[in-house]
Amino acid sequence: MDFKKLESGLYAIKLSPGDDPIKCLSDFAQGEKVGGFFQGIGALKWAELGYFDIETKEYLHNRVDGYFELLSLMGNIVFVDDKPLVHAHIILGKRDNSTIGGHLFSGEVSVTGEIIFIPTDADEITRVKDEFTNLSLWNF
Amino acid sequence: MDFKKLESGLYAIKLSPGDDPIKCLSDFAQGEKVGGFFQGIGALKWAELGYFDIETKEYLHNRVDGYFELLSLMGNIVFVDDKPLVHAHIILGKRDNSTIGGHLFSGEVSVTGEIIFIPTDADEITRVKDEFTNLSLWNF
Amino acid sequence: MDFKKLESGLYAIKLSPGDDPIKCLSDFAQGEKVGGFFQGIGALKWAELGYFDIETKEYLHNRVDGYFELLSLMGNIVFVDDKPLVHAHIILGKRDNSTIGGHLFSGEVSVTGEIIFIPTDADEITRVKDEFTNLSLWNF
Repeated sequence: MDFKKLESGLYAIKLSPGDDPIKCLSDFAQGEKVGGFFQGIGALKWAELGYFDIETKEYLHNRVDGYFELLSLMGNIVFVDDKPLVHAHIILGKRDNSTIGGHLFSGEVSVTGEIIFIPTDADEITRVKDEFTNLSLWNF
Repeated sequence: MDFKKLESGLYAIKLSPGDDPIKCLSDFAQGEKVGGFFQGIGALKWAELGYFDIETKEYLHNRVDGYFELLSLMGNIVFVDDKPLVHAHIILGKRDNSTIGGHLFSGEVSVTGEIIFIPTDADEITRVKDEFTNLSLWNF
Repeated sequence: MDFKKLESGLYAIKLSPGDDPIKCLSDFAQGEKVGGFFQGIGALKWAELGYFDIETKEYLHNRVDGYFELLSLMGNIVFVDDKPLVHAHIILGKRDNSTIGGHLFSGEVSVTGEIIFIPTDADEITRVKDEFTNLSLWNF
């Protein structure tokens, strides 16, 4: 993972083969001490996708293998107890151009990842546990 | 719906269970008197999706029920006759990670919605009726 | 294609029937001498989609016809040898709200395209040939 702070204050983040997008975004935010919003495209080798089951209040996990176009990576990073928490959803394209997607737990870049990151101060948004869903939701 | 104007001038908009994304975005824009561009992720309980039929020049409506990951919410708000007009497209993820999507007429948040909003002055873009499509298209 | 530089420095780009999104974005960047990041929605008549085959190191091409909602257009423009290079991924919605997607080689707008463009200086990011993939990847 490489990144560059652009003159506009935004960051360009480049992911390389083997990189996990979630870990890279977390490391980036920790190092730069910024939260923020991101979007990006690229290609993945596999991904562990999530779907939140509202009845059990737990995520289903589904690892998908194969080489995929990363058609959309979208999400945000906020700090909770001084640690960055990455929330990302992705949509993947298969060889036949069909698509799948979900919450992204982890994955591996096959070719590249090209991400634009709009930073916020690390303390502008945080998350607090929500009793109804058992999830940590935005708080500001 | 809650929102926070960030130090960068951008807005973070949080949707809560029961919220209709279109209504919330419209109310937000009306209250802040801003147009702009948004993207976001979250989860929906149902959505009324649209597909524009170019022959009849009307939208097909298709209500989809079930709990969905909101994989991508993307669009913009411009003012027409002093009223905000929200144009949003979404992509939803099902339990098996398959995806569907369309123009968003209305919907209901099941868990949360996390939106970043880039504001513009309310008068920088508007819409005017297009004779060919019968739709209101951007004008500036 | 029309565009407007907003007071924030961002650009709104409007595509019209017949426009090829890739050609328009390239012409825009060449004329304004800016690179940058974009996202947008709209509707397409057809698209030539790509999927990168990591074994042959070549893109598969798949032209899809029919009228589609453009659910997500996402990507970036950087300059290589003084020429803008557009890298875009798209997700399309069909009449039944099913979705397909891929790398976008070319396409044709059916109704409209509404794009927000965040500019960067033309020389902030470039691309260099990567020996492993035979693709031109970000360099900064």
